[in-house]
Amino acid sequence: MSKVLIRAMVLPMTGSDRFYPRGEVCIENDRIVSVGELGSSPSGFLPDRILDLPNDVVMPGLINTHTHAAMTLLRGYADDLPLMPWLKEKVWPFEDKLTDEDIYWGTSLALSEMIRSGTTTMLDMYASMDQVAEAVIKAGTRAVLSRGLIGNGPNGEKALQESLDLFQRYQGAGAGRVSVMFGPHAPYTCSAEYLKKVIAEANRLGVGIHIHVAETLDEINIIQEQYQKTPVQWLDDIGLFGGHVVAAHCVHLTSNDMEILARQHVCIAHNAESNMKLNSGTAPIVELRSRGVVVGLGTDGASSNNNLDLFGEMRSAAFQQKLRMDSTVLPAYEVLEMATVAGAQTLGLDDVGMLAPGFKADLITIDMDQPHFYPRFSIPAHLVYVAHAGDVRTVMVDGKFLMEERKVLTMDVHKVCQEAESRAKRISAELNG
Amino acid sequence: MSKVLIRAMVLPMTGSDRFYPRGEVCIENDRIVSVGELGSSPSGFLPDRILDLPNDVVMPGLINTHTHAAMTLLRGYADDLPLMPWLKEKVWPFEDKLTDEDIYWGTSLALSEMIRSGTTTMLDMYASMDQVAEAVIKAGTRAVLSRGLIGNGPNGEKALQESLDLFQRYQGAGAGRVSVMFGPHAPYTCSAEYLKKVIAEANRLGVGIHIHVAETLDEINIIQEQYQKTPVQWLDDIGLFGGHVVAAHCVHLTSNDMEILARQHVCIAHNAESNMKLNSGTAPIVELRSRGVVVGLGTDGASSNNNLDLFGEMRSAAFQQKLRMDSTVLPAYEVLEMATVAGAQTLGLDDVGMLAPGFKADLITIDMDQPHFYPRFSIPAHLVYVAHAGDVRTVMVDGKFLMEERKVLTMDVHKVCQEAESRAKRISAELNG
Repeated sequence: MSKVLIRAMVLPMTGSDRFYPRGEVCIENDRIVSVGELGSSPSGFLPDRILDLPNDVVMPGLINTHTHAAMTLLRGYADDLPLMPWLKEKVWPFEDKLTDEDIYWGTSLALSEMIRSGTTTMLDMYASMDQVAEAVIKAGTRAVLSRGLIGNGPNGEKALQESLDLFQRYQGAGAGRVSVMFGPHAPYTCSAEYLKKVIAEANRLGVGIHIHVAETLDEINIIQEQYQKTPVQWLDDIGLFGGHVVAAHCVHLTSNDMEILARQHVCIAHNAESNMKLNSGTAPIVELRSRGVVVGLGTDGASSNNNLDLFGEMRSAAFQQKLRMDSTVLPAYEVLEMATVAGAQTLGLDDVGMLAPGFKADLITIDMDQPHFYPRFSIPAHLVYVAHAGDVRTVMVDGKFLMEERKVLTMDVHKVCQEAESRAKRISAELNG
Repeated sequence: MSKVLIRAMVLPMTGSDRFYPRGEVCIENDRIVSVGELGSSPSGFLPDRILDLPNDVVMPGLINTHTHAAMTLLRGYADDLPLMPWLKEKVWPFEDKLTDEDIYWGTSLALSEMIRSGTTTMLDMYASMDQVAEAVIKAGTRAVLSRGLIGNGPNGEKALQESLDLFQRYQGAGAGRVSVMFGPHAPYTCSAEYLKKVIAEANRLGVGIHIHVAETLDEINIIQEQYQKTPVQWLDDIGLFGGHVVAAHCVHLTSNDMEILARQHVCIAHNAESNMKLNSGTAPIVELRSRGVVVGLGTDGASSNNNLDLFGEMRSAAFQQKLRMDSTVLPAYEVLEMATVAGAQTLGLDDVGMLAPGFKADLITIDMDQPHFYPRFSIPAHLVYVAHAGDVRTVMVDGKFLMEERKVLTMDVHKVCQEAESRAKRISAELNG
């Protein structure tokens, strides 16, 4: 039995009126027992460990709803290029060289960065997902994993089989921290027939589907030409939205598309920075939310961002919508909700994303005793408009400390960095001589 | 005589092909003596102090070309409001309550945040500028200071006199670290007659002019109605662009405006994040630069950003232009130039913004031995797309260390934070009961 008491400013994300400037959170094993004012612990709660952090905010860990973690290995390898040369001449040839081990170390690099920037859960889509699962189990974070499925490619059937194997081996692994979704890549890389197979398997196993949708105008044009429909209409018509679905990007949507997404309770993974850097466009996040659509935040891969910092992503998401519409849209607290509560809903996780009794003890503390956090008029505004990755002091997942005083406890970060460096440079040398 | 040798990765910002993965910089008193490969120090250079930072990048300190430093006191006081209610009901009433001492402490808070985020020079526009100058002298940074001039207000003449006094007292103060520009606020707050007086005084004293130009569509409409011209045309016609001018914002420009700015060698202070958060729009930075206009980066005040972090500003500037145009515009190295070399040009400073022999020793080091900076394919891409304020380890201005190992050496940061907190809260209490 492990009992931890954290005394800090508490932002539980259970409603915009809830904030305890002098508060505390009690944790027993992997779960939160109580959240409230200082002194509100249940009588008889005798902590083994007390963290006194009166100048920190404790809040739920951030949730990254769309990434390709191992793409950290491509960070800075190719930037500022047009989309197709970037993919065809840089990204794909590099990815073709990745071994299972490379993906393990690239994912570990991503996880060390995520922990250091306050992200406790990710939804990942990539290959060699057993390696990704092992890296997650070692790092101690929470993750929903999806094997990327290029249905139209030569490995479509093999990759679907790998998804089934992944589910068999890793659903519920890491004491429940790991779960699985199916990951058909996109409408333009999977046929209707293939998607229907994926849907049937997902329904049979009761898992969700994670797919890129309406990311670029090129995609819209391809699908329009092929099926005379929008990607959303087409996916709806073939029945993809029957179960739990995470649609990443959704930049280019018609009104009717938004109605479909709302009616079918599709969750959106919004990647503001990737959409800006790759010139994909500005997703209609305000309109989606006004229709009741759940929208989480994602970083996409580190080759198109180039970091995995959800604090930066919160800022960029708010700024991008304010630029497009007006300064009042996506106020700070709503952006925090997207990175926490709505992120959990997007991933289909019902006991993370808030600090509340019975919820998993996935939480972070942020050091607010720094010049950029004064004066303390609004903690939500500071977290969204001011904070950066380096302000995170403590990270806990499932009741276990993954980072204290900015030191990652579950991984040898130096080794991870060196492995990532040498593997990435090996591939670059193979490709570029 | 003080001699310092810094061994690190050197990014001198003297050309995109210049980078020394194992380099060194020699400093004697306030100036750089040499920059080059490891072992390139001049013979006979015997350092009093050696900094061995092989995993840091040393580069020129960042230059903030437009801010209102003391507005840190309003950080988080009012966000997510429409522009006019935000100004009229929140910002202006708060500013009316500011004392000279408040401005000293608000500026000190800004300077402590700037030092911690690698900014060594700012161009400021505010009131009580003697206090701002004193805060700069104490902090040890470099600054160009302009008393904001609302010519159409009751204090227009008094403020102009304060500008003259500021010049008399502080031009060249702090061993040359402080200089002065005149700060007529904007075309819509100053008459032609008033501006002509400012121009005459600026010409007489040989100082530059710092002014907001074409920030919002409202401004364009006001000036169009009043003068049947664009703000840029109008300012050109009354002769404002005859000397050195820093035009902040320049969001809404015609082709002809851009031609005028280029022909008159007007420098632009671009504030990407403020322009996004306040829904001002996207400045045509790529078009300006293609016409040879010098463009620096600014954060604007902390009430509309809400931090003073130029690393975030670099990311946002690049992302905003890529979103508007395509993924190839404003590549990473060019953005770094905007934050350094072009920033110095914007401020009319000819011996900062680069690491080169004879230049002032204004430099920073960034700790690249962190997961988010691996693999090390591109240092410029990492600095623009990945880095955040917390990655800065060392700050030197004029050859003196202002920060080492993230500890600010010239100020009592704790006291600054507490003073700022209590003063901001006092004003808020007076206004809101």
